[in-house]
Amino acid sequence: MAPPSAIEVTAESDTSGITIPNPLTAPIASNDIYGRRRKAGKSQWGVAAASDTANFRLRSYENKPKAKRWNHIISQEALIRKGNSLKEAAKFLVTPGLISLGGGLPSSEYFPFEELSIKVPQIGHFSEAEMKESGIMITAGKHDLAEGKSIFDIATAFNYGQGAGSAQLLRWMTEHTELVHNPPYEDWKCTMTIGSTSALDMALRMFTRPGDVILSEEYTFSAFVETARPMGVRVCGVPIDAEGLLPDGLDHILSTWDVNIRGARKPHLLYTVPTGQNPTGATQNGDRRRALYAVCQKHDVYIIEDEPYFFLQMQPYTGPNAPDVPPPASHAEFLKSLVPSYLSMDVDGRVLRLDSFSKVISPGSRIGWVTASAEVVEKYSKHTDVSTQNPSGISQLILFKLLEEHWGHAGYLDWLIYIRMEYTKRRDAILQACAKYLPTEVMSWKPPMAGMFHWMQIDFTKHPDYPEKSIEAIEESIFFRNIEHGTMCMRGSWFYADAEEEHHTLFFRATYAASPTDKMDEAIRRLGESVREEFRLGKYAGAIENGH
Amino acid sequence: MAPPSAIEVTAESDTSGITIPNPLTAPIASNDIYGRRRKAGKSQWGVAAASDTANFRLRSYENKPKAKRWNHIISQEALIRKGNSLKEAAKFLVTPGLISLGGGLPSSEYFPFEELSIKVPQIGHFSEAEMKESGIMITAGKHDLAEGKSIFDIATAFNYGQGAGSAQLLRWMTEHTELVHNPPYEDWKCTMTIGSTSALDMALRMFTRPGDVILSEEYTFSAFVETARPMGVRVCGVPIDAEGLLPDGLDHILSTWDVNIRGARKPHLLYTVPTGQNPTGATQNGDRRRALYAVCQKHDVYIIEDEPYFFLQMQPYTGPNAPDVPPPASHAEFLKSLVPSYLSMDVDGRVLRLDSFSKVISPGSRIGWVTASAEVVEKYSKHTDVSTQNPSGISQLILFKLLEEHWGHAGYLDWLIYIRMEYTKRRDAILQACAKYLPTEVMSWKPPMAGMFHWMQIDFTKHPDYPEKSIEAIEESIFFRNIEHGTMCMRGSWFYADAEEEHHTLFFRATYAASPTDKMDEAIRRLGESVREEFRLGKYAGAIENGH
Repeated sequence: MAPPSAIEVTAESDTSGITIPNPLTAPIASNDIYGRRRKAGKSQWGVAAASDTANFRLRSYENKPKAKRWNHIISQEALIRKGNSLKEAAKFLVTPGLISLGGGLPSSEYFPFEELSIKVPQIGHFSEAEMKESGIMITAGKHDLAEGKSIFDIATAFNYGQGAGSAQLLRWMTEHTELVHNPPYEDWKCTMTIGSTSALDMALRMFTRPGDVILSEEYTFSAFVETARPMGVRVCGVPIDAEGLLPDGLDHILSTWDVNIRGARKPHLLYTVPTGQNPTGATQNGDRRRALYAVCQKHDVYIIEDEPYFFLQMQPYTGPNAPDVPPPASHAEFLKSLVPSYLSMDVDGRVLRLDSFSKVISPGSRIGWVTASAEVVEKYSKHTDVSTQNPSGISQLILFKLLEEHWGHAGYLDWLIYIRMEYTKRRDAILQACAKYLPTEVMSWKPPMAGMFHWMQIDFTKHPDYPEKSIEAIEESIFFRNIEHGTMCMRGSWFYADAEEEHHTLFFRATYAASPTDKMDEAIRRLGESVREEFRLGKYAGAIENGH
Repeated sequence: MAPPSAIEVTAESDTSGITIPNPLTAPIASNDIYGRRRKAGKSQWGVAAASDTANFRLRSYENKPKAKRWNHIISQEALIRKGNSLKEAAKFLVTPGLISLGGGLPSSEYFPFEELSIKVPQIGHFSEAEMKESGIMITAGKHDLAEGKSIFDIATAFNYGQGAGSAQLLRWMTEHTELVHNPPYEDWKCTMTIGSTSALDMALRMFTRPGDVILSEEYTFSAFVETARPMGVRVCGVPIDAEGLLPDGLDHILSTWDVNIRGARKPHLLYTVPTGQNPTGATQNGDRRRALYAVCQKHDVYIIEDEPYFFLQMQPYTGPNAPDVPPPASHAEFLKSLVPSYLSMDVDGRVLRLDSFSKVISPGSRIGWVTASAEVVEKYSKHTDVSTQNPSGISQLILFKLLEEHWGHAGYLDWLIYIRMEYTKRRDAILQACAKYLPTEVMSWKPPMAGMFHWMQIDFTKHPDYPEKSIEAIEESIFFRNIEHGTMCMRGSWFYADAEEEHHTLFFRATYAASPTDKMDEAIRRLGESVREEFRLGKYAGAIENGH
């Protein structure tokens, strides 16, 4: 593990002329961020207490522009939603001495849990073997808050909460967001989600009406299409290359949009997975993002930036037999190595960013958060209050104990660097297997720079049944032959943004995230065998050597 | 704690003539239910494995009628929703020897958790003090499943899951539902929710379209109204008495429904909280429920039965100074003492029952489940797959360890009896305080039989400002005077099913669930003082004695 060091950023002044300490100027390793926090009102740690992410930001944003208003694209449903009126009665609870018989919350006396413990890895000793050996046990008690042992406990976390999530964990999320993205407008906020798929469902209900069309990569996250379709919302695919969305392609679609031909109003929404996109694995570089943001400004398009793979950005790929690139030498170098997010360039407040713990801590936590302008975040929380309520308090407590009380921001960055190196190894392993086994006469690919997915193109024009058989029929035939050979990859057509469009490419998606290296190698060997058979190519020369 | 004993129910025969063991004939205490389980396929315990509640039912339902179909009232959104196609690719995973590079699931190697432990009470030693003293620690390891130590572990629970929830916990829910409700039709199923508020949001999106009207108690759960309104759905209040909905009132509304006057199609949906209703605390008795079910049959109305307070049914109220009624002597007696659910009389499959752990284990778990016909449950799970995904796996694992591996069904019933006795004490305490402090000249109430809420009527006609001031203005004045006096109760008007209707009653809701007895006593004393002042009545005679 690289030793953490200071990040050099210039301190800012706020309008009062007083220098505000900039968290980025302090060595993150020492977790100085904690010393810079404003004194927090104790009441926000209580049961179902209101929390406001604006209180947790460490910098001053007074010189920054205010976010644009989005009323004109917000749905009727979201505009008239009032939220939960009973939760609003909570404002009287601050009255000194008040005894409330108001809220219908059960007493923690009847939560059958006295203690919750998790064994987690020490900073820098992150592997499963090390965790088993030297992991430490962290414990949350039932009444730690009342007993002054912690600001979060079972009595609080296991009770009802607010739509925004607990102040305890929301503070950590806000600080992390500020540290990594530093949004360039005044009124940004965060609010918790129960995962990005749910956030997407709620965002679509906020920003669309039946008949709308949303823009997205021409191959896109299938659950997005499947979430949108039942709402009467279609997806229009934007052309992509190996680095994702093409700005000219996006501009062309928007500039030539004909309501009569398209049968829908001009799109006002772009949904994109900019880093390690699912399924293509493509990562938009900084310049690409800036160009795309400018196109969205030109056509006043609002952006949903879905970033589950942001911290699965890997080391540069050096080829099959070249030496590895050494890991980032410091937190500063690590953060600098990351592609800038849309949020980090969002001067208009036109981005709703979805963050998730699913790919970097645990999908089963069902916890993520969104960052957007106060207007959008408040509408989002109001919907949460009358639907999902808030993410599991049990999950929140566990993440709080790990991220806030054990690792801190510095330890979490160390963990992310660890994950980065692990995914680099996995990515390199699948690329080596592909180079070894796949018939390059008909298959081609680019090394993914982020995420979980390797995207392999197949030249269907060389298929013996082409052009009698359609692309999709050839794809299906390969899929089932793969299964016969004991390997499964996902069919590209499952990711069509618009299945009714005609398509001219054929892809398969393989993940290197899940299987151990030896199994992955074998799966790719079988894939090569299957495709050779399907295309009636010669057997893999290495097959005999390897005894197959 | 009462010793558990056998429940006497006759065993049934299925059509093959073989006697199917009936779980209800075995002593529940010995957890014989576990011995009667069918041999389960091991693959269903795996990561993101498909689970089907139908495999977990212990009785044969072949002689029972099939549920009616509800296609005619199901929304376009729910009809066209296909669910998550990638999750469906999971069906190929059963192929022997297959190596999948398909699903985008992270490897459990990167979950930074080695162990999860909870300290919970032993059966029969449920109080906080006893749990502290004699509670036992239950532990889940990371790879317990692979190591043969348990069927559920961190590697599985902390990964992605299916919309229906994990088979491990879903089995327990199914068995519990069968034990308590024994639905009288063939094709009932359960599926997990992330709590009943979310279930309600999803049910409304399945069963309504904008412009619809839903029937409910004239005072109803405010979050229900607030969830429905943004969807363009209004609520029509049905008259109630101290036992809740009036069957004649319901029939009258439906029989005389005039589309032109009402501006909406005839309602096809009833939303009701039959037990300890929020806010009125009313509990419909068995006969009332049967009569209401018959009215719903007559008008083909579908029923959403929201039952968070079902197991907060209390001992009979015996008056201020009478001896307490002894607790149920056995599980059989306990189950028999419960009001029959709509689900238990649902021969048509016209009930969607919402169950929740919020009031009996922990709201922060964000886990509940719904029971309905296969048609409805499958549509529900499909929506889950593309929105909330599944409840927190961390919460699922903790509930599984407690309910399945530690307490079992018998221990859980013991816990529920414990909770019943505790709520009885609390209810009795608030009623004693009310009898002592409240001015019966203007206030009246009925003892609640279930739930968390005490509903107090105020005779606004005796208010000095009546009729110059409206009911709502008088209510507001009382509310703020209460706050001045240091006590908070919820205003009845916050629970109007339809705020635009004219209302002729004034109520306040107090909860006895949250505060300790002495605080509750003081809060009611303040309430009495405040109402006396508001109505310009004499001071409470006891006030001087008590030194106030």
